[in-house]
Amino acid sequence: MELKSPAMFIGVHGNGVISFGSGQPDLPPPEEVGSIIPQSKAFKYGLIQGNDNLRGELSKQEQFRGTDKDNFVITNGASEAIDLVLRTLAHGKVLLHKPYYYSYPPVVKAAGLEPVFTETVNGKIDIDDFDKKVRDCKAVLINSPSNPTGRIQDVKTLKEIEKLTTDLGIVLISDEVYKDLIYERENYMLSGPHVVTVNSFSKTFAMCGLRVGYLYSNDKSIVNNVIELKTHTSMNTNILAQDMAYQALKAPKSYVEKQHKIWLERRDFIYEGLLKLGLELWKPEGAFYVFPKVKNPKKTVIDLFKKHKVITYLGEWFGDKERIRLSYALDKAEIEEGLKRIGEYLKS
Amino acid sequence: MELKSPAMFIGVHGNGVISFGSGQPDLPPPEEVGSIIPQSKAFKYGLIQGNDNLRGELSKQEQFRGTDKDNFVITNGASEAIDLVLRTLAHGKVLLHKPYYYSYPPVVKAAGLEPVFTETVNGKIDIDDFDKKVRDCKAVLINSPSNPTGRIQDVKTLKEIEKLTTDLGIVLISDEVYKDLIYERENYMLSGPHVVTVNSFSKTFAMCGLRVGYLYSNDKSIVNNVIELKTHTSMNTNILAQDMAYQALKAPKSYVEKQHKIWLERRDFIYEGLLKLGLELWKPEGAFYVFPKVKNPKKTVIDLFKKHKVITYLGEWFGDKERIRLSYALDKAEIEEGLKRIGEYLKS
Repeated sequence: MELKSPAMFIGVHGNGVISFGSGQPDLPPPEEVGSIIPQSKAFKYGLIQGNDNLRGELSKQEQFRGTDKDNFVITNGASEAIDLVLRTLAHGKVLLHKPYYYSYPPVVKAAGLEPVFTETVNGKIDIDDFDKKVRDCKAVLINSPSNPTGRIQDVKTLKEIEKLTTDLGIVLISDEVYKDLIYERENYMLSGPHVVTVNSFSKTFAMCGLRVGYLYSNDKSIVNNVIELKTHTSMNTNILAQDMAYQALKAPKSYVEKQHKIWLERRDFIYEGLLKLGLELWKPEGAFYVFPKVKNPKKTVIDLFKKHKVITYLGEWFGDKERIRLSYALDKAEIEEGLKRIGEYLKS
Repeated sequence: MELKSPAMFIGVHGNGVISFGSGQPDLPPPEEVGSIIPQSKAFKYGLIQGNDNLRGELSKQEQFRGTDKDNFVITNGASEAIDLVLRTLAHGKVLLHKPYYYSYPPVVKAAGLEPVFTETVNGKIDIDDFDKKVRDCKAVLINSPSNPTGRIQDVKTLKEIEKLTTDLGIVLISDEVYKDLIYERENYMLSGPHVVTVNSFSKTFAMCGLRVGYLYSNDKSIVNNVIELKTHTSMNTNILAQDMAYQALKAPKSYVEKQHKIWLERRDFIYEGLLKLGLELWKPEGAFYVFPKVKNPKKTVIDLFKKHKVITYLGEWFGDKERIRLSYALDKAEIEEGLKRIGEYLKS
């Protein structure tokens, strides 16, 4: 069994498998989303930039208050948003903090750019190392809370990153798809003249399969370049899914709050559970991942899958050879069963 | 008014505008498509390659009989299929026949490749010129029936292209999104060891806004590379839309036949109408575009839009400075009204 990439596990379920793999909420999307019924409009091309009403509603969200809907682009998930922004940058280096989301290095390279890395300490950016590495970069990609570490960056660090990138005129891409899943404090939204905020309906509203994400930037030239490129590479994002995303934004605040409580419980449950199994790991501060150290990670991932029907992701895919990633986006009973199987594996 | 790209007109409608712009059918999708209601499965990530049942059904279609579902990838429209294939090729030249679909040169360039061109004679490929130009290319992109010319390539020519590219080991991308809209003969599906057939549900089944396309190739390495890239750039194609596409394939043959008859009537109507207005144009053999010569195309496109609320596309976007493109994917009454306004403009 070759552990080539997470693609091998995405969409694999059923048949007694417990998947700590893919980071998708098992919780239902807001009820409001179900009210959408396909209408003829959904079958027509829409604006490449995205539906007017959805962008309008986004610009009214608390974090975006006072922004203009023309500064948003709706995309096929956060993945496409990041891919499009990177592709508009042409040549140069992009700074990533390590461990990173597994798609970052491949998309950076696929865009003709070169990934460079700043190491983190317990998942936290070392601003001195960051400062050294950032100077000849074209862009920086920040992901707080982080997939796979579940760690958040300190507000102080984020402000220093804002200042540095602003002074240097560097594009700062902030992947904030887990912004509503922080257990320790409010999200701090990075801002600045060349900041691109990337977000998604997948995690907050449990709508992964519908693939609706978006980007926002004050830098109108980035926005326009993205629209121009998207005209040729995928055209509008699925109209029906955009209508559903619009409805999701109308869900009461209690929807997000309720989910938040569930995530927190699960976080505590899996964190304590893995500690009890004797594994070394960081306490997640956001998102829904734990990233424990294990002996022989490759063998662990293969054996857990083949012998115990448990899917985990190899740390190496995220730039860390000593760990494996577990998503806890599944219900407590499944987490419990999964932990039991992991315990059996570790004993054997 | 700057005529930068078709993006400016995509999704623009209402307010008395007659749009000969965007190539989207006004006809309804098959009834079967409407039977799909969002189910919880639609909110989960699916296989990057695409839903199993949809790929299975595609492999049973007449033209694909005997193929394997593992050789298909479902994409965000044909646009993404072409973009992904090109991006897996790395460096080199890609041969396009001119006039071309406006997105081809930008996606070729965005993939880090270099577009080179073979001129056509009345929209038909000159195989001698093709032969000369193809030899140092990495890939060829054929679009028959053609957007914007509405012309089809002779079967003899297509067979020579198959032979040449096979002998030279060149990737042959065949964009056949208009394969069900040929007025002169059956479609001839290009085949060979490195052929990538690109198709879409947008035109045949009038589902543009849902963005479901696909590619098929015998060359498993191309298929695998595309899946790997899509894992990072957009993940699965919208699950709900794939379910709808699956239903569309279950529509009776009469759906396509009925549409075909309507397109043929419209083809004759607009072709005769433009001839009567004194314009020089080729008779379309497929797709739903006419590509007449006009004096001062830029002024024509601007004046038609600003003074007569008629959207047309600039020939220059398709590599032809003497023409404008009109889509006749709208009902006869609208075509009639549009022709009337064009007549008024030409008189003034």
